[in-house]
Amino acid sequence: MGIKCSVTTEVLFDDAKVPVENLLGELGNGFKIAVNILNSGRFGLGAMLSGTMRTCIEKAADHVTNRVQFKRKLIEFENVQEKLAMMATYHYVAQSITYMVAGNMDKGSVDFHLEAAVSKVFCTEAAWYVCDEAIQLLGGNGFMKSSGLERFLRDMRIFRIFEGANDVLRIFIALTGIQKAGNDLRGLQKALKNPLGNIGVVLAEGSKRAGRSIGIGGTDLRPFVASELQNAAKQCAEVSEENWRHTAFMFNSIDLRPFSLWTHSAKPSNLCLLNMERVSSKLARVADSAIDIYTMAAVLSRATRSAKKGLPSAEHELLMAQIWCQEASSRVQRNINRIHSDTYKAHYQRLAQVARNVSERRGIPHTNPLEID
Amino acid sequence: MGIKCSVTTEVLFDDAKVPVENLLGELGNGFKIAVNILNSGRFGLGAMLSGTMRTCIEKAADHVTNRVQFKRKLIEFENVQEKLAMMATYHYVAQSITYMVAGNMDKGSVDFHLEAAVSKVFCTEAAWYVCDEAIQLLGGNGFMKSSGLERFLRDMRIFRIFEGANDVLRIFIALTGIQKAGNDLRGLQKALKNPLGNIGVVLAEGSKRAGRSIGIGGTDLRPFVASELQNAAKQCAEVSEENWRHTAFMFNSIDLRPFSLWTHSAKPSNLCLLNMERVSSKLARVADSAIDIYTMAAVLSRATRSAKKGLPSAEHELLMAQIWCQEASSRVQRNINRIHSDTYKAHYQRLAQVARNVSERRGIPHTNPLEID
Repeated sequence: MGIKCSVTTEVLFDDAKVPVENLLGELGNGFKIAVNILNSGRFGLGAMLSGTMRTCIEKAADHVTNRVQFKRKLIEFENVQEKLAMMATYHYVAQSITYMVAGNMDKGSVDFHLEAAVSKVFCTEAAWYVCDEAIQLLGGNGFMKSSGLERFLRDMRIFRIFEGANDVLRIFIALTGIQKAGNDLRGLQKALKNPLGNIGVVLAEGSKRAGRSIGIGGTDLRPFVASELQNAAKQCAEVSEENWRHTAFMFNSIDLRPFSLWTHSAKPSNLCLLNMERVSSKLARVADSAIDIYTMAAVLSRATRSAKKGLPSAEHELLMAQIWCQEASSRVQRNINRIHSDTYKAHYQRLAQVARNVSERRGIPHTNPLEID
Repeated sequence: MGIKCSVTTEVLFDDAKVPVENLLGELGNGFKIAVNILNSGRFGLGAMLSGTMRTCIEKAADHVTNRVQFKRKLIEFENVQEKLAMMATYHYVAQSITYMVAGNMDKGSVDFHLEAAVSKVFCTEAAWYVCDEAIQLLGGNGFMKSSGLERFLRDMRIFRIFEGANDVLRIFIALTGIQKAGNDLRGLQKALKNPLGNIGVVLAEGSKRAGRSIGIGGTDLRPFVASELQNAAKQCAEVSEENWRHTAFMFNSIDLRPFSLWTHSAKPSNLCLLNMERVSSKLARVADSAIDIYTMAAVLSRATRSAKKGLPSAEHELLMAQIWCQEASSRVQRNINRIHSDTYKAHYQRLAQVARNVSERRGIPHTNPLEID
């Protein structure tokens, strides 16, 4: 489909012998080295795609500012404005978390696997969304080779799959955050030797500790952000508090000093595979909420810094931070509802049954309405 | 990007003369003929893509049933189940509305432009979603040429653009539905000569008539559906009632006799362009709600029929109808909230300002956090 300059072939090792002088690091530590390479790769993807998004937005902005349709320039239509503004906001968020992870790395942190995973999932999906919307805004021209956008989209499809498929990374993000919380809770040590087998216990314990505060000054982030962002900070704090209560997802710190935010220092967790299949759908939503909260904190921090420094783009950045906190905080609320309400419990049981039916049949189990197939 | 068997070239007419014997239909009626062709094309897209989705689901079902990862078959993971079940449900909905429109056409209706547009928007986006998820489930194999899926995705991208771009069709759907409602309301005749310039009046009038019933037996659809679908019918009826109150979108009838549902017989409306740009974002959400309500009614009708006929797949179909009504009804509620709440009014003003900033600059107005650009 894309990345055609990258040659892809299958390599099989069958009892292959490696000369001693070719050993990387120490014997038995190869997995760690491989994972560290993935961490850098995950960070790098976000940085690269931030640039791709920028180009997509430039092409789209140029088109909608000049193209006249229904006797108006496209940019005068509210639905076009909404698309362009959301594209710009996604780029701003992606760029912000990329610099945040880079900041952690520059400070010498070697423990940025969680942030790198958050950045990889968010940026690869943001870039896909931005490029797809750019094509839609350019219409037929966007589909044609000459615009350059279709190649971006083709090249980009693999990024949601490689360097850790986003579906697997979501589970990794959720488990890392939940296990960190679990380690900090007394009386759960035994349960947490098998955190997934006991996820009900962990979630219940999280719900009990409703009053627990996180980060500097509890969950009230308002003292740390620009005056224009008071409401946005409240939205972020409320859902991160609620998210913690319901899912026990642990933020080690929420620190709004620009670009040193949320320095996560949990020890690497051991993925425990037992029973993972039973809760992986819930875990994906826990991860989505964590990503939303992390990104909200990132843009609150960055836009506050821009406002305090009086950058020419400060007003524009404050608007995007407000837009993002509105969208992200309402998504977190929906995800919490989906994880915990009885309505959705029945819903997921139905989904599981439909999936089993399709899997058994290896396809669609029903005929068409004329009952000829 | 795709549909490479279809040759695409630019054709320019400059004062071209057409011989009398080459005239199609009557002089000055060419636009009607062109639009009628589009209506058939829009219907045809849904029918075709229903088959494409089926193949995507078969490939995905085969892969997740056989592929072992983390010591389990993929199908045993809840997040994989959710993906496969949603893909199957989207296919079921798309197939159902395709047969519904076909039923209208077979009965000799020539006034199916609204249904054809609903079907085109829904099916092209459903197919994109289903194919994209199939690629994600197959991982790297899905990205490679050999799976056949990447070609589907490339070919499919144009369908959301041509035969009427989905963004424009959403406005068309909303205007047609609102104007139909407007025509039925007394005292609004003058305002409705320019429905978009007076959209505030139309929406306000709609809100006042809270008690108005729609379709057979008011909005209570429960007597007409299978016993398993009582709650789903309630969800559909509640949001369609609420949607009517808030947006004045008019359903001519909700008739749950299988495949004769919602026969729309409004006269063709004249698109009035004045002020369209001011409300096109609201109109897109009105259209999304209309599409959700139409699709809910379609699957309630079809699954009820399958249950009453005792088809072997009836239980499976009932599950998908329940799943769809849960997802679609909560989307309608969110869209109503977005159209009417003050929070979102400010949100859309911010989006408009961000879009203007990006448009003026023809790209991103801010530097990166290091302030080097």
